[in-house]
Amino acid sequence: MLGRVNHIAIAVPDLAAATAAYRDTLGAAVSPPQALPEHGVTVVFVELPNTKVELLQPLGDTSPIAAFLEKNPSGGMHHICYEVDDILLARDRLVEAGARVLGDGQPKTGAHGKPVLFLHPKDFFGTLIELEQA
Amino acid sequence: MLGRVNHIAIAVPDLAAATAAYRDTLGAAVSPPQALPEHGVTVVFVELPNTKVELLQPLGDTSPIAAFLEKNPSGGMHHICYEVDDILLARDRLVEAGARVLGDGQPKTGAHGKPVLFLHPKDFFGTLIELEQA
Repeated sequence: MLGRVNHIAIAVPDLAAATAAYRDTLGAAVSPPQALPEHGVTVVFVELPNTKVELLQPLGDTSPIAAFLEKNPSGGMHHICYEVDDILLARDRLVEAGARVLGDGQPKTGAHGKPVLFLHPKDFFGTLIELEQA
Repeated sequence: MLGRVNHIAIAVPDLAAATAAYRDTLGAAVSPPQALPEHGVTVVFVELPNTKVELLQPLGDTSPIAAFLEKNPSGGMHHICYEVDDILLARDRLVEAGARVLGDGQPKTGAHGKPVLFLHPKDFFGTLIELEQA
């Protein structure tokens, strides 16, 4: 069921500083910042040859990464996003296997404009998993 | 400088249960467990089309992931490993840019038999970064 790793998301308190670290210190190609107010984050894409890292900074008062940064003020790895061919089929198999889908169980439109779901980290050993229909 | 994401490492308290979750619930291809006593871990590789996830369980009394699991008893994302062409060149550039290399600054032989270094997570917004000479 799991396809490619679409991205690894890293929450950071200071997006400009994190972007500079990945660009200047680590020598990676980075995108300009993109504000995604409907997702409560500003994102910078770090382009690697086989996948990407997404640096996320909270945007607005109800950012989904605000609680994570309260617990981890320096930042940290927030989630892994895997691609799936059919997100409804994936969801139904996961629910049947006993895994919990966050929210109301309906796919939402993710930051890339595609249907996404998040799985409960307690079912996957502390890792928040995002599934995106590729 | 940064090349491919070689792997994403996830520390887990119960490798058999985590392997079953990735294989049976998430439908991924997983390897048999490999004990790496010289690295203080037992590892299962989760093979994705473009990279891999490594599930790590402590092995022995001085495992490098023991402290992480004390802080995160359910498990969690532990580090990201990026490939580099020349690890000594990468190290020298990083040190010149002010980043801290863990240990004595000399590459060690990593779990894949290749030279590796770890960078201080405080310099990279809470993310532990491993560099592996590809």
